[in-house]
Amino acid sequence: MSFLDQIIEPTFVVSESICRRNIEAMADKARRLGMNLRPHFKTHQLHEVGRWFRDYGINTITASSVRMAEYFAQDGWDDITVAFPVNIRETDRIRALSERVKVNLLVENREGIAALEKGLTRPAHIWIKMDCGTHRTGFTADQFDQVDELVEILAKSPKLRFQGFLTHAGHSYKARSREELAAVHAGTMDVIRKFRGRYDTLVPNLQMTYGDTPTCFTMDAFPGVTELRPGNFIYFDWMQWQISTCTPEEIGGVAACPVVAKHPERNIAIIYGGAVHFSKDFIENDRGERVFGKVGAWTENGWTLSPDGPELIAISQEHGQVRTTPEALARMQIGDLLPIAPVHSCLTQDLLRGNTVIV
Amino acid sequence: MSFLDQIIEPTFVVSESICRRNIEAMADKARRLGMNLRPHFKTHQLHEVGRWFRDYGINTITASSVRMAEYFAQDGWDDITVAFPVNIRETDRIRALSERVKVNLLVENREGIAALEKGLTRPAHIWIKMDCGTHRTGFTADQFDQVDELVEILAKSPKLRFQGFLTHAGHSYKARSREELAAVHAGTMDVIRKFRGRYDTLVPNLQMTYGDTPTCFTMDAFPGVTELRPGNFIYFDWMQWQISTCTPEEIGGVAACPVVAKHPERNIAIIYGGAVHFSKDFIENDRGERVFGKVGAWTENGWTLSPDGPELIAISQEHGQVRTTPEALARMQIGDLLPIAPVHSCLTQDLLRGNTVIV
Repeated sequence: MSFLDQIIEPTFVVSESICRRNIEAMADKARRLGMNLRPHFKTHQLHEVGRWFRDYGINTITASSVRMAEYFAQDGWDDITVAFPVNIRETDRIRALSERVKVNLLVENREGIAALEKGLTRPAHIWIKMDCGTHRTGFTADQFDQVDELVEILAKSPKLRFQGFLTHAGHSYKARSREELAAVHAGTMDVIRKFRGRYDTLVPNLQMTYGDTPTCFTMDAFPGVTELRPGNFIYFDWMQWQISTCTPEEIGGVAACPVVAKHPERNIAIIYGGAVHFSKDFIENDRGERVFGKVGAWTENGWTLSPDGPELIAISQEHGQVRTTPEALARMQIGDLLPIAPVHSCLTQDLLRGNTVIV
Repeated sequence: MSFLDQIIEPTFVVSESICRRNIEAMADKARRLGMNLRPHFKTHQLHEVGRWFRDYGINTITASSVRMAEYFAQDGWDDITVAFPVNIRETDRIRALSERVKVNLLVENREGIAALEKGLTRPAHIWIKMDCGTHRTGFTADQFDQVDELVEILAKSPKLRFQGFLTHAGHSYKARSREELAAVHAGTMDVIRKFRGRYDTLVPNLQMTYGDTPTCFTMDAFPGVTELRPGNFIYFDWMQWQISTCTPEEIGGVAACPVVAKHPERNIAIIYGGAVHFSKDFIENDRGERVFGKVGAWTENGWTLSPDGPELIAISQEHGQVRTTPEALARMQIGDLLPIAPVHSCLTQDLLRGNTVIV
């Protein structure tokens, strides 16, 4: 394959056709359900990939940092949610961004609100972080007294326009089947129902924006939700396969890594590809072993992946160890590239942004 | 502190005075033992930090990739070991590098040797990878037949000048005390003795280059070794503290991360600082919990760290969760920066290369 001939070091290979299918599926679903789709661009972090979304009618996006929002604003995106609690040390930067594009900002304390009130020159859309069960940050349905306080402050602000609640079902990543995902989803929808019960009458036109790829991609009903913010679904990864979110055929990005050594005595191939390329997220396989990536095979126009494939079982800074079979190892040649589905594509793409090929 | 006022997002803060003490200690030891010191520059990856080493008489360095070797060659380093098995897809790049500076290259198979023999235009120093017990890659003392074959091929090469064996005691990272480190070290020295026993008479002036910070920094005798290649010792990190390599006072780099939310109900502070800043390496504390970093306190000119300090117990892409005490949480203000010793400074510095401050 010609695109492989150009690759000399660990490189992220993105399949445009698979990614476009994933985008289309998600865009169709949001349209069918009457919800806005505001995909999280933290997964790909690339102008070129971001532009594909426009072909499916998407004009609103999510970023996980002010820096990332600036990057996409440079490419013409003009309605951006920064889905991270306002970092008051960045107020000047947020002001500059808000003077160029429409920004949606996330708050969860008085200090954040005060910094925006003082620092911004133009009106901004404001969201309060809701904790729908992940218990990372935000307010649970047991903390309405604290939420009330912020809602009241925002109601009096001439500049900060309270829209509603933003949440992310990060605990869906612990699921290992569609049934477990459905259980997580039922719990998160219950939290949304409680917030609606409390704030629907207090806040006119209350909005609810909801994230996470596993439930957004697989569940069919989101009662009370007005907007979806999944990100990972453009590429998926081997963790999403384990969660049961995607099939191997839906995985839209792999790392291409050169084989540099072979150890037949222990059925291990050493690749150029380590923690500075994959990061160090892992899943555990059925035997309780850590897995950092799933090895596939190249095809004429891309790759195939299978649950039976070899696994990337250890990584250090630059080295990776792929455990394979005697037959497969015998076929591998020094210098061959292996296509490896990362366990967490967001982190691998982040590390390989400077080394990405689109096919 | 003035340098903190300039920091608005996750930033790696390097203490020049601590780093210089660490470099001096290691340089003194190598000189005392009559060994060359060839520090691994994969830890800091920065020209400015690299230049400090010159003040301690160091002119030879190690890199973990051809790309990194190119970066340091640009800053005048002209004797570089690329301590990674030759990736034959990069032969053109290696040739270009070898035409500018003296390179030491690592091989462990016929294919690597053949690619260099064919691709290089000038003589290069060649090392064979020895496995001293880590079982990542290289040859063990049970594989002399395979080593013999490579040594013979190299002996006939007009271009490739075989120097000896290169090894890295990566398994020292599993130690948790000086006694355990000493046991690892005894095993690695035994492998070196066996290789010397086999090749001393076959190879004139046989060299042995030996890596890893834990044993190089703490052990006193390296019989048969001619060169040391530790890297992490310039910064150390909280993993090295756990291994017993360093004291908290010797840790030369911390990530400064803004506090963005507080959750008194579970004694958690949320920081701007996640997997794209720290990577996802972790250690386990005495209670078997994962720890991604150790939180210290700022002082007038730097920071202090203590085993009793709060821990970074969870990270997602941009968020970190610091578990602390009610009293400490009450003192923390939204917008404060926390100094956090990473668990693995090499990976954190890699991610924060563009956001580094030297104090």
